[in-house]
Amino acid sequence: MLISDLGEFELIEILAKVLDDGHTSWGAAQMPHLNLSVSNGDDAAAWIPDTKYEVFTMDSSVENVHFKTDYSRWYDIGWKALASNISDIASMGGQPLYGLVTIGLPPTIKVDDLREMYQGFSDISHHYEMMVIGGDIVRSENVFISISLIGGTSNIPITRSAAKPGDCIFLSGTVGSSKAGLLLLQQQLASYNADQEFLIQKHQKPYPHIRQGKSLGTIGNVSAMDVSDGLFSDLGKLCASSNCGAIIQSTSIPIDPQLKSCFPDEAINIALSGGEDYVLLGTVHPDQIDKLQQEIEISVIGEIVGQENGITVLDTSGSPYKNKDFLGWDHFI
Amino acid sequence: MLISDLGEFELIEILAKVLDDGHTSWGAAQMPHLNLSVSNGDDAAAWIPDTKYEVFTMDSSVENVHFKTDYSRWYDIGWKALASNISDIASMGGQPLYGLVTIGLPPTIKVDDLREMYQGFSDISHHYEMMVIGGDIVRSENVFISISLIGGTSNIPITRSAAKPGDCIFLSGTVGSSKAGLLLLQQQLASYNADQEFLIQKHQKPYPHIRQGKSLGTIGNVSAMDVSDGLFSDLGKLCASSNCGAIIQSTSIPIDPQLKSCFPDEAINIALSGGEDYVLLGTVHPDQIDKLQQEIEISVIGEIVGQENGITVLDTSGSPYKNKDFLGWDHFI
Repeated sequence: MLISDLGEFELIEILAKVLDDGHTSWGAAQMPHLNLSVSNGDDAAAWIPDTKYEVFTMDSSVENVHFKTDYSRWYDIGWKALASNISDIASMGGQPLYGLVTIGLPPTIKVDDLREMYQGFSDISHHYEMMVIGGDIVRSENVFISISLIGGTSNIPITRSAAKPGDCIFLSGTVGSSKAGLLLLQQQLASYNADQEFLIQKHQKPYPHIRQGKSLGTIGNVSAMDVSDGLFSDLGKLCASSNCGAIIQSTSIPIDPQLKSCFPDEAINIALSGGEDYVLLGTVHPDQIDKLQQEIEISVIGEIVGQENGITVLDTSGSPYKNKDFLGWDHFI
Repeated sequence: MLISDLGEFELIEILAKVLDDGHTSWGAAQMPHLNLSVSNGDDAAAWIPDTKYEVFTMDSSVENVHFKTDYSRWYDIGWKALASNISDIASMGGQPLYGLVTIGLPPTIKVDDLREMYQGFSDISHHYEMMVIGGDIVRSENVFISISLIGGTSNIPITRSAAKPGDCIFLSGTVGSSKAGLLLLQQQLASYNADQEFLIQKHQKPYPHIRQGKSLGTIGNVSAMDVSDGLFSDLGKLCASSNCGAIIQSTSIPIDPQLKSCFPDEAINIALSGGEDYVLLGTVHPDQIDKLQQEIEISVIGEIVGQENGITVLDTSGSPYKNKDFLGWDHFI
């Protein structure tokens, strides 16, 4: 059945039911951090805020730019579209709370595909104990998914502008595997081995670092952002926001063994340039490293330096790479 | 200059400046209801909530579905895209606070056109004392604008599900003029007279009823929604949410004289079916009508009845119209 067989309002009802059933299954209404007054189906949703700070982000995915239905399941497209928003909340140290989803669709989309996508929204919402509480469906020539998400935190929100020379630079997880998974998908092989499957999973079903962000939020004088455009590109943004430079030891960058085995010659380059890792890139005063490492797994990859030094990545022999090798993703160039 | 000449990050900087300059010009940072901790340029925005309730909505506009650049200025496209979100906040009785804007764009869009659109966002934000605090720009084959908006209210949020038999049905403004303006634009005449200009302005630069929604929120036992899909269609949704029916006197529907003069034979039909009026459709107990009318201008257009009676629209002679004449907008049929 195509969505044109149903019409907008019947379709909204079917998709709202996927979300409602999901919320009911894990008892969202009983969670103390979720306090919804008006849900799906009104002009707006409403709640009683009960965190010191609220954080607010929005992110969109467009067919053939951010995802291709050729090699991504609709379930994963839904999961990942919401994951990229959850990751922004993670980077502020917040807990995701309430999301709205807008879908732009040509009338030829199958209802079952959308139902799958909404199951993806529902399952990742369950995993992170948040709710998708409404949204909008509009006609569009190409598919797009716009999601906005509210999170909450009692700690001061972590920014990307608080890094200081002398701070350690760390990652809360491995980088590059998502990009490696995409490269494999683009090859459209007949089958994949276990290592390849691992990388593809990393690309298609990321798990943003909410727990890690919350731990980081309890420690003062930190900065953080999530790695979405690529480590090197995102480090550049963090340094620009903080008016500082950085030295990175490429040998310290955490890389999954599967990435090394599948792309032995390009692993470092992929780790530095690949995007959509959805781990946290942060900085912390050296005195706080031990405390942070007791709470979450982090890898120190370098040090913040003065802005005049720019950003340097050292190779295995300790010589600087040329930075342009690691330029990340730009939508319009 | 095209956006492809700039790249994503430079473009974001230019557009963020339009918003920042706007906020500075009217002192947004000094407004007591706006309490932003982290603005544009981080992974997420953050604030300290200080209203009893928060309300949250999201709405999208797609080129050639919701707007055409053939006959709409980019400034007006921006104004109106945000207006439709502000109107949702109005229908809950809230004050708009913080908005995020995502734009999907082909690389061939002119930077100056986008700057104009952001001026539209900025000016309507000023008018309603709210802030656009960030967002996202992504590549897309066709232009789309997704906006999410947070509002706040100390009163219980108004829903569309609280109408009861015996309640008066009212409108907070005239309906049909926006649709009439669209019909005129579609004719692409060489010039327009004053009445026609009035209708076109109603279509291109709507002023959502925030003040009216706030007044309504202070009165108990009301229901409301904004008229976005057309009076008849939206009344159907209000009745469905409230499990009731309605009788409307078509002679009581407030219609601008300009609509009557430009479309003498179709004015009632356009008033009932035309969308994007962004006035409030609400219900209130008859005892409260006087109190409400002291605060805001409303027109009583009918009465809520039992669900079994369905929705009836009476013509000038008191006979019922056939309902199907007034079907509103559906994206996929």
